[in-house]
Amino acid sequence: MSGRVRSIQRRKIVSRTTVHAQLDQLRSTGRYDCFKLKWHPIYEDKSMWPVPFHLFWDSDIAKWIEGACYFLADPDEYDEEIDRTVRELVDMIRAAQQEDGYLNVHYTVVEPGKRWTNLRDMHELVTGHPEIELSLFRLYAVTGSTEVFDLAEYFLTERGKPDAQDGKHYYDWGREKRGESAWLRSNSYPQSRAYWYCQAHVPITEQRTIEGRAVRAGYLLTAVADMLYLSSKGRKSLPGAEAWLQALHRLWDNMVDKKMYLTGGIGAMSQWEGFGIDYFLLQGTDEGGCYAETCASIAVVMLAERILHLDLDSRYADIIELFLCNNIMTAMGLGGKSFPYINQLASSEADKSILEEWFWCACCPPNLTRLFGSLGGYLWDYGFEGNDVFINVHLYTGAELQFEVDEFTISLQQKINWPWEGRIDFELSSPSPLQTTIRLRLPAWSKGRYTLNPPATMDVLEVEKGYICLDSSYLSKNPVFSFEIHGFEPRSMSPHLYTNQRTLALSRGPIVYCVEDVDNCTESNHFKDIFIRTGSPVTEEKVVYEASGEEYVVMRAKGWKQPPSTVGSTPTENPKPRDLVFVPYYFRANRGGNGQMRVGLSNGGTEPGASCS
Amino acid sequence: MSGRVRSIQRRKIVSRTTVHAQLDQLRSTGRYDCFKLKWHPIYEDKSMWPVPFHLFWDSDIAKWIEGACYFLADPDEYDEEIDRTVRELVDMIRAAQQEDGYLNVHYTVVEPGKRWTNLRDMHELVTGHPEIELSLFRLYAVTGSTEVFDLAEYFLTERGKPDAQDGKHYYDWGREKRGESAWLRSNSYPQSRAYWYCQAHVPITEQRTIEGRAVRAGYLLTAVADMLYLSSKGRKSLPGAEAWLQALHRLWDNMVDKKMYLTGGIGAMSQWEGFGIDYFLLQGTDEGGCYAETCASIAVVMLAERILHLDLDSRYADIIELFLCNNIMTAMGLGGKSFPYINQLASSEADKSILEEWFWCACCPPNLTRLFGSLGGYLWDYGFEGNDVFINVHLYTGAELQFEVDEFTISLQQKINWPWEGRIDFELSSPSPLQTTIRLRLPAWSKGRYTLNPPATMDVLEVEKGYICLDSSYLSKNPVFSFEIHGFEPRSMSPHLYTNQRTLALSRGPIVYCVEDVDNCTESNHFKDIFIRTGSPVTEEKVVYEASGEEYVVMRAKGWKQPPSTVGSTPTENPKPRDLVFVPYYFRANRGGNGQMRVGLSNGGTEPGASCS
Repeated sequence: MSGRVRSIQRRKIVSRTTVHAQLDQLRSTGRYDCFKLKWHPIYEDKSMWPVPFHLFWDSDIAKWIEGACYFLADPDEYDEEIDRTVRELVDMIRAAQQEDGYLNVHYTVVEPGKRWTNLRDMHELVTGHPEIELSLFRLYAVTGSTEVFDLAEYFLTERGKPDAQDGKHYYDWGREKRGESAWLRSNSYPQSRAYWYCQAHVPITEQRTIEGRAVRAGYLLTAVADMLYLSSKGRKSLPGAEAWLQALHRLWDNMVDKKMYLTGGIGAMSQWEGFGIDYFLLQGTDEGGCYAETCASIAVVMLAERILHLDLDSRYADIIELFLCNNIMTAMGLGGKSFPYINQLASSEADKSILEEWFWCACCPPNLTRLFGSLGGYLWDYGFEGNDVFINVHLYTGAELQFEVDEFTISLQQKINWPWEGRIDFELSSPSPLQTTIRLRLPAWSKGRYTLNPPATMDVLEVEKGYICLDSSYLSKNPVFSFEIHGFEPRSMSPHLYTNQRTLALSRGPIVYCVEDVDNCTESNHFKDIFIRTGSPVTEEKVVYEASGEEYVVMRAKGWKQPPSTVGSTPTENPKPRDLVFVPYYFRANRGGNGQMRVGLSNGGTEPGASCS
Repeated sequence: MSGRVRSIQRRKIVSRTTVHAQLDQLRSTGRYDCFKLKWHPIYEDKSMWPVPFHLFWDSDIAKWIEGACYFLADPDEYDEEIDRTVRELVDMIRAAQQEDGYLNVHYTVVEPGKRWTNLRDMHELVTGHPEIELSLFRLYAVTGSTEVFDLAEYFLTERGKPDAQDGKHYYDWGREKRGESAWLRSNSYPQSRAYWYCQAHVPITEQRTIEGRAVRAGYLLTAVADMLYLSSKGRKSLPGAEAWLQALHRLWDNMVDKKMYLTGGIGAMSQWEGFGIDYFLLQGTDEGGCYAETCASIAVVMLAERILHLDLDSRYADIIELFLCNNIMTAMGLGGKSFPYINQLASSEADKSILEEWFWCACCPPNLTRLFGSLGGYLWDYGFEGNDVFINVHLYTGAELQFEVDEFTISLQQKINWPWEGRIDFELSSPSPLQTTIRLRLPAWSKGRYTLNPPATMDVLEVEKGYICLDSSYLSKNPVFSFEIHGFEPRSMSPHLYTNQRTLALSRGPIVYCVEDVDNCTESNHFKDIFIRTGSPVTEEKVVYEASGEEYVVMRAKGWKQPPSTVGSTPTENPKPRDLVFVPYYFRANRGGNGQMRVGLSNGGTEPGASCS
């Protein structure tokens, strides 16, 4: 990828602050040195079972290295200290690898000799927590080794079979070999043999709904998409490709239509960090759950990007935008050094809206580093056949793409004050023998409204699956053009009625808003008793956040306070008006206050006069 | 209790049909013969752990015997075959008792020698499943043995202590003695050491909210109320009585205000058959849970009756009425031979509204027999001091109370077409030296409206905590009087807004209504898309259910069908009107149809014009 992302403030913060702050955490917690294979006091801790605290240390380091390397490859962000550090870590990892190639700190230092004895729980990069499949397909894409493809396909195909090993489910077979009762289980398993926790209850192609730990499901389906894409490229045939494709779309649709928050969070259930039943999307833990783990949203962004290769449809890129701008952006403090573990839509006294510096299970922070490092890869994709070149633009931001087609260099620049304004200025440089087509995503929230300047005549302008197609007849005459997306006026959103959430949330362009007590200081009950109404005027104001100099849009609207009547009482006839201030959801927990926040406010509940008796 | 309940149709059905049908089930399943202490094939079943299928057999028999005996004591319902059967069972039980007095089929036949090794799980009538405390207090009330009182008090006091045995929680101590991992647990425990499942997470007096399996919590608090009542009678001092009383009221209030369905069901969570968090009261399992087990409601009726002895306040008797008329009445088919296991407020395809003849865990059916057998005990209580006599009337139905005060016999008759009409005709017979006071409950749903005939002057009529007090100056002049409770017009009820249930349910007097597909045959989506509005006219019609001859009131109201719009679509402007028929909730699943039913219908959701985008 030679695409360059320019001037995204958040990406610069990650590169210049987050990468270093996380390195400090990796060092001070012992992770940095774990590949030296020495004993660490935490290895004796038995309070977690079966997964001890340190089991993720290997992957915390790996994610950080991957993220750091993306920035090292960017001339604007290169950092010599980070370069030295990555090289030192790589040397330590090389030295830690066993003679037969095996690499895993826990089974080398803490439980040597117990390798492969519990693939269900122990994150040993095989079948419990899907991840290995992604790596294998990446390895196959580079090496073309069919053995590697076959192994990944085997993992995906065998998963969830009731009789995979000696006529038994593989996890049962493993459990029996370990001599464990079926009633012995970690706290992530609400019930015995709840193998849906790791998407292994039935084979993937037979799964009707997306279940279990959300991040695992996301990685797993990303591997399925990779397998389909790589095989569709003709390099490797795939038996049952149609069934895999159907499962991929079925589980995607189930997730997006019935198990996704309007902020791009997935996973309502804290116990298994994953999906609830259809439409179970409560806003806060005081209502029954809202987890919306950061890693899970990152996994969906990865998945959507893969599906776009199979099916260029703006609904997948819309999801990338939604997730990035909301559930992912809110998952890091504006200073780049603090993180929430969960991304709830409403706080409560027991679960205030707060940021912390690090976690014992620190999968999300380095995953954010990795994502922001590789952000350029999500903006667009491109290709060519002979002299026909295409560039599909999925996301808008300040960025430049440059790539070679034979002896020619093509470049495309985009400039925009995203996400606050809709006008994007494009500048294409495409040498004349090449016939270039550019497809521009038109977000669903624009409701199809845009302005192209210079305008195109209808016979060159197609809109297909949410992408506007500018062909070479337009582009050869107009290599410099502007594309203005409309739809930056305030919108109110209501969740599906089956969610039992009778709320309204404000949004603007791709940004979802929330209220916080720091701006609305009369509030002391986490905005549970505040309602708003559609049709009330909303005003907007562009302001600058002084601490970072970043610009954003504040919205103001009228609300009313009405505590719910108790049984037998009469509802108040004159609820108290409130002037509410709304800020982007990703601002939450950054500017003081008492950790009170809410995205969806009550829509007023029952009609006036309805009694509670 | 010499009170007699007359002409309650349901009680007759239980006596003449249910008692016999359940006896057939007890015989055919092997339960009847279990006290013969022979082997039964089911004893080898290992599919349930740690509680095998047969573990409740002893108590299924015991509940049936208790229920049957209440009817044997009623001259109108005496049945010779049942009498013989009870005697045979009692003989078998006597013979099964071990020499040291121990009685438990499982530990006598299946696991001899393992007595008292797992009090947490094995229902061995001690600390896991609260029940023994109730029996001990009843034994104390009869015998006056302070040892018995002390033992029950000890069980209640020790429960939940973190250091009860060798510095450990008693369940941890027992588990360690059994050599079991803390991660080994039954499916009722979502997480390791979730001792709140059996109300043992902290001592009872420190519990802030009511938690865990609902029926256990109900029995446990009933024992606490018994302990307080018996000690308040001065027979036995109780250290910390005030803390016990506060805990009792705190947990009651939490249950009734935040964890109770409007049908009188408690326990939203199927996994532990118990309470969810505050306000987590979804109507059906497709929304995230509605369990509302019959036994749990029966336990609350028992509890409320005990609290009335401590505090004569109509809010406790209102709960008895609400539970009896709805969640308990709906828990038995109109024919007396079939039962739902759970009492959901809305059906779904996966959980249709159906009745079954029996269950492997058959606690509820014989519990209903026991409850209907002892119904007279809930209607009223009475007492005297010298010549001052009082009768507190909690519930209204056709019934007669008779008791002796020294050489005099007092009787009170009530006649009413309950629950369809509000006029109750009373006839008191109280010999002249006695000064009798009658207190009549005025239900909350009457909103204080009633007519007494002959009328009383204000200086004799007090209303205290929801009871109207007729003193002897009125009663001596008017031993025959009528008391008419108003409030039988249709009402709509809305749950507390924090439940996220923006629904309206129709009710009339004490009866909550539902819609069923048998009356509303155009419906095929379990009424999820139907909404109603307050203010729409509701018509009523008195009809007779032909199969049983019982009279009831049907209600009719206008509804509208509007499937929720999907993301990006525009809501329908003209929802389709529907003429809806409402029947009492306890009629559900009796008259055919496809098992589709709902109590609370949507209140119309968002205002017209709110968009889903």
